[in-house]
Amino acid sequence: MVKKTLGGINVLYPTPTTIVGAIVEGKPNFITIAHIGIVNHAKPFLISLSMGKPHYTNAGIKENKAFSVNIPSEDSVIATDYVGLVSGKKTDKSDVFDIFYGRLETAPMISECPLNMECKLFDVYNTPIHDLFIGEIVETYAEESVLKDGKVDLGSVKPLLFDMSSVRYWSIGQTVAKCWNVGKKMKQK
Amino acid sequence: MVKKTLGGINVLYPTPTTIVGAIVEGKPNFITIAHIGIVNHAKPFLISLSMGKPHYTNAGIKENKAFSVNIPSEDSVIATDYVGLVSGKKTDKSDVFDIFYGRLETAPMISECPLNMECKLFDVYNTPIHDLFIGEIVETYAEESVLKDGKVDLGSVKPLLFDMSSVRYWSIGQTVAKCWNVGKKMKQK
Repeated sequence: MVKKTLGGINVLYPTPTTIVGAIVEGKPNFITIAHIGIVNHAKPFLISLSMGKPHYTNAGIKENKAFSVNIPSEDSVIATDYVGLVSGKKTDKSDVFDIFYGRLETAPMISECPLNMECKLFDVYNTPIHDLFIGEIVETYAEESVLKDGKVDLGSVKPLLFDMSSVRYWSIGQTVAKCWNVGKKMKQK
Repeated sequence: MVKKTLGGINVLYPTPTTIVGAIVEGKPNFITIAHIGIVNHAKPFLISLSMGKPHYTNAGIKENKAFSVNIPSEDSVIATDYVGLVSGKKTDKSDVFDIFYGRLETAPMISECPLNMECKLFDVYNTPIHDLFIGEIVETYAEESVLKDGKVDLGSVKPLLFDMSSVRYWSIGQTVAKCWNVGKKMKQK
């Protein structure tokens, strides 16, 4: 099969859309980020955010060494997109959401989001255009309504899946199969 | 609203399931990886893979400084799960897929996957439990059938979305809204 070449662009989508919270110049600020990563999947749980160096939020994360990663549901698509459209440099976004705090004093979290991860800054990996903020998750908060037997149920979360190819948010569909399980059929060959 | 605390676990899902290809001990090998990241979204396009240090593939990536990131569709769920279930240490996985090569000689890619990213190793970020491989995308390949006006159409790709909470693969749903657009409604307030 002949494939088409697209010139070395990134097609690693969709990723979960998040709203990152931080204290910047003494005030809570929020920015939409979907260029996320999972870095270390065990204690310490480490996740990454790729944030263009000119963003207003970056200085606040570096100063306070803390931030939050909030997972909005489809119901919040307008506010989620809004905080990605306007910069904290010009617009005060501290009253867009209901805010709560956890263990850290400088990681403002969003009540309306069904899931919140409170992170302390673990490291900053410097890339040509972006600061890659690596956060250690110190606590995770969930609305009871999105838990099923104590585990997060994505069908209830209804995350906004980000896709840079179509420049669209997508919804999540249905479960397809069990991981580390459905492939056993081939193992028995 | 009172939220439940989950003890600092990662809930940053779903992520796109990928199959990573590399040459290990002289042979093509494949492993399922969904703990991915987007690191620098501009030239050089950088993406990350979080791979537990004991994996067989890690040594091959370090030796050859190249790997591929292949995006399987739902149709390949059994083979995708299979290459995540069995280790290359014990099982030869070189004949599970049809393989093609691009510019690099040590980044085996999977014909059956609608999207492939050929990467050279840019850096390894060391974490407590995982090697975080940071790859620079040198070329991207796409099946014509998943392109719409020259752009990737996720509805045609039908990616397998990984969710560690339910330990399930999910399908993608429908488009919800335009990014950097739907939030303008709030801007006009």
